[in-house]
Amino acid sequence: MTTSPRLLPQGDKHSVEDGLFLAPKFDAAGLITAVTVDAATNAILMVAHMNAEALTKTIETGQAWYWSRSRNSLWLKGETSGQIQAVKEIRVDCDQDCLLLRVEVGGDGGCCHTGRPQCFYRRVDGVSDDGTIKLNWV
Amino acid sequence: MTTSPRLLPQGDKHSVEDGLFLAPKFDAAGLITAVTVDAATNAILMVAHMNAEALTKTIETGQAWYWSRSRNSLWLKGETSGQIQAVKEIRVDCDQDCLLLRVEVGGDGGCCHTGRPQCFYRRVDGVSDDGTIKLNWV
Repeated sequence: MTTSPRLLPQGDKHSVEDGLFLAPKFDAAGLITAVTVDAATNAILMVAHMNAEALTKTIETGQAWYWSRSRNSLWLKGETSGQIQAVKEIRVDCDQDCLLLRVEVGGDGGCCHTGRPQCFYRRVDGVSDDGTIKLNWV
Repeated sequence: MTTSPRLLPQGDKHSVEDGLFLAPKFDAAGLITAVTVDAATNAILMVAHMNAEALTKTIETGQAWYWSRSRNSLWLKGETSGQIQAVKEIRVDCDQDCLLLRVEVGGDGGCCHTGRPQCFYRRVDGVSDDGTIKLNWV
């Protein structure tokens, strides 16, 4: 019999910051931010959200599950695109309100719904005379 | 005379995803998530939030400003600790609801309020017999 992962409620500051049990802090909508990076290159692929079920399923299955805020549903990343993310490591930050997933991307190795390998494909490139902030391709 | 940076409202999907002007999407609280990485190593240092003023000041000054949700105030990172973040690049994601800052950290080079160089100093390290999720140091 395998036991399902169980997310603890947050205790005091010391246990949250220095404890060795996961006690994630979800926001008012029940979500936690997840930053997903390529385990090999450290490149930031995407930033998305998980609810408790997505996080539990990710830990159980070793594949990245998220909560889609636009579709309002659980989302196995790559279910449609084939760009399944094999989770190599999950890190948590000091106050346990953010996760960092280090993944290996399956399928064609892509991530962004626009067809690009990563979501962060533009950078700020100065301010125009009228104050608008220019972007350029990375 | 210098013009202050001006944040555009979001237009249609095409202009948001493929346009070359910054039109960030703030959440209901007026905040946008910012992931901050070390420009030299790509290590993820922290994840925080910016409001429009913090983002504008970051672009104007080249130093990372955030919005502190706990203190409910603008926050020049490093003002107290000396760990000023010199911003080398700001990237934005596909739907412009997340920023990526690539920075060089001043002072003693640290970042996390716990005294560690990065906020992500623990990783998930398996599930206990009782279902609790163990962490370990990175």
